Amino acid sequence: MTTNLLIKNIKQLVGIESTVRNAPLKGTALSRLDVLENAYLLVEDGLFADFGNMENCPERAGQEVDADGRSVFPCWCDSHTHLVFAKSREEEWVDRIKGLGYEEIAHRGGGILNSARRLQETPEEVLFEQAMERLAEVRKFGTGLIEIKSGYGLTLESELKMLRVIRRLKEAIDLGIKATFLGAHSVPMEYRNGNRQGYIDLIINEMLPQISGEGLADYIDVFCEKVAFSVAESEQIIEAGARHGLKAKIHVNQFNCMGGIAAAVRHGAVSVDHLELVNEADVEALKEGETIATLLPSAAFFLNDPVPPARKLIDANLAVALATDFNPGTSPSARMPFVLSLACIQMKMLPEEAINAATLNGASALECSQEYGSIAKGKRANFFITKPMPSVAFLPYSFGSDLIDTVFINGKR
Amino acid sequence: MTTNLLIKNIKQLVGIESTVRNAPLKGTALSRLDVLENAYLLVEDGLFADFGNMENCPERAGQEVDADGRSVFPCWCDSHTHLVFAKSREEEWVDRIKGLGYEEIAHRGGGILNSARRLQETPEEVLFEQAMERLAEVRKFGTGLIEIKSGYGLTLESELKMLRVIRRLKEAIDLGIKATFLGAHSVPMEYRNGNRQGYIDLIINEMLPQISGEGLADYIDVFCEKVAFSVAESEQIIEAGARHGLKAKIHVNQFNCMGGIAAAVRHGAVSVDHLELVNEADVEALKEGETIATLLPSAAFFLNDPVPPARKLIDANLAVALATDFNPGTSPSARMPFVLSLACIQMKMLPEEAINAATLNGASALECSQEYGSIAKGKRANFFITKPMPSVAFLPYSFGSDLIDTVFINGKR
Repeated sequence: MTTNLLIKNIKQLVGIESTVRNAPLKGTALSRLDVLENAYLLVEDGLFADFGNMENCPERAGQEVDADGRSVFPCWCDSHTHLVFAKSREEEWVDRIKGLGYEEIAHRGGGILNSARRLQETPEEVLFEQAMERLAEVRKFGTGLIEIKSGYGLTLESELKMLRVIRRLKEAIDLGIKATFLGAHSVPMEYRNGNRQGYIDLIINEMLPQISGEGLADYIDVFCEKVAFSVAESEQIIEAGARHGLKAKIHVNQFNCMGGIAAAVRHGAVSVDHLELVNEADVEALKEGETIATLLPSAAFFLNDPVPPARKLIDANLAVALATDFNPGTSPSARMPFVLSLACIQMKMLPEEAINAATLNGASALECSQEYGSIAKGKRANFFITKPMPSVAFLPYSFGSDLIDTVFINGKR
Repeated sequence: MTTNLLIKNIKQLVGIESTVRNAPLKGTALSRLDVLENAYLLVEDGLFADFGNMENCPERAGQEVDADGRSVFPCWCDSHTHLVFAKSREEEWVDRIKGLGYEEIAHRGGGILNSARRLQETPEEVLFEQAMERLAEVRKFGTGLIEIKSGYGLTLESELKMLRVIRRLKEAIDLGIKATFLGAHSVPMEYRNGNRQGYIDLIINEMLPQISGEGLADYIDVFCEKVAFSVAESEQIIEAGARHGLKAKIHVNQFNCMGGIAAAVRHGAVSVDHLELVNEADVEALKEGETIATLLPSAAFFLNDPVPPARKLIDANLAVALATDFNPGTSPSARMPFVLSLACIQMKMLPEEAINAATLNGASALECSQEYGSIAKGKRANFFITKPMPSVAFLPYSFGSDLIDTVFINGKR
């Protein structure tokens, strides 16, 4: 039995594709956002079946929704989050406002290692329930595809626990979910005195085989940064992931330019994420490959860090994606519409560029652009109806408003 | 007949006052936020009647609400907005992203003068309906008292139209509303070639007497800035307002330090608003009077302007208030919780300071602290119940979340 859904009287049908693209949008192509005015949208069996001008709107049985002059967008594809965590970290944030430094905050119970300690103590069931609540909010913000990383486990047992929670989320909910193994998020304290390689060996020789054996991860990630893993260490882990069939998505250039981008591109990473700092060598390296630059403006905003240089990357004809980096320490927000506002206000992206970067290129950064990221025949019917808006640009312009009215996932409200 | 409302099982009752203060909170006092844990709250006839620990919770008839471990805050007092306007200005914002300058944007139809042209063309009824919709959103964000300025009229007729819309809003809605006459928002084009004084005379000799005669304004405002009115011109208008019994709230130091703060303090202004730039002379001037420094971080955020130096002002033992500056050109957001997030993230205010600045001091900046701004016996029962939150700091920390669940105005949902 086919289930049909017809959305009528759409003011602007945003982000349509007549032919599904295989590659992410690069450079000037990012500003080309196809919009159909006065449109209908037809959904069959959870997939987009057709769309067109209201003059050609089909008459048919099935469920009908009158958009009543409101607009329709494809759901956001949030390709970088740490949504599974045990506890918010607002005390640490207040300590930072008071001027406390990194060491003091760690001493008082802040930072990744403390999220790890809390997560290790928290039962899988509790983590799952908390994550389900967060995903309900994620969905309300209009996100239809999301990546979730491990990395607050940092032991074999706890990394497995996190990834099993993510697997349960995939089974329990209709949002698209991709899992990334981030055992290399931070070096645990007990390995810091001369035995860093011991932890890397644990990741490579114990965690990866078991995770791979259980099929728990879609990608591998490393925090390539002075406070975490060197470029050489990152490469060891990326190569080990590749041997288990896991492509890389790498945290890099958040605080320092260390050559991590070139290494990631050389290893065929799907994306390099953060890029608050980008030098000319980084840009040249990105030009050599197909790695997507995923920018996380909420994290830069929350930490008062340099704004990721989106224009520099786009003007170099590169592919840019936008994601939330939702996590309790440095980006406690899963609100994709606000990421778009930041991208336009602070990074000088055009609204069309921000929308493409948050939909199609987010899907590409999860190798899912055949199924997600635009309104195209055959793709999953993940879309939202907005509240009344005079224009597409009004969405990122209204940085404080809740303009997403009704979210449909696989054609279901 | 008295109507009673009892809120039970409140996790944290935030912003209580045992004795109602007369003056705004200054300096270190701003960080003292009284919070009662595990509390009840009693409302009678639209006013706060009592509160205390759940152990002493009264048993009585009337309506009961179980907060079920959630928290209660007093409503925000947003003391600076331009909520009555005819049209959003996202096209101008996109032009700015593209790098267009002030003159080009004005030429293409941006800026205050173009908001004025649109407002002049829009019927009072339409302005009223649009403003009512915006106030519904304002209320949802937890605001219980709001100031609204004229200033997109710039003719006698249109300034009166705006102020009459604000009067109708006061009558139509239960939110507290104060009206400010801002005829001196910009010099209209026809007065710019050698006849600036002609427009000032129009304000003083025609607008003010009629506005005063109809009782349409509670305050007078001037945009004291290089692109608008000089300090001497501002003083003429402030003095004229005083002759009609209107105290001053002045736009000043948004782009330049011109001595406007000292002039405003000298004239006993209730508040000076913006203060993106503040020099030592400005701080010294503020120390000499009782004028409140009202900071508008959303405007600085949206324009990528310098962050208002809240710490410098607080550390000088001054009174700081926070407001949205809601307007279509430079701050298209009425979301007070996000103003608090900006105040903490960018201006390094503590959560307690931001809450006091957005409640009690906002009320003081509208001379309403006897009625609004805290949970105190006899004040209006304007408060909201949050969604579940682990702590007070979680509210500004969660900069993207909607944590306000149910808003009560005069004790009514």
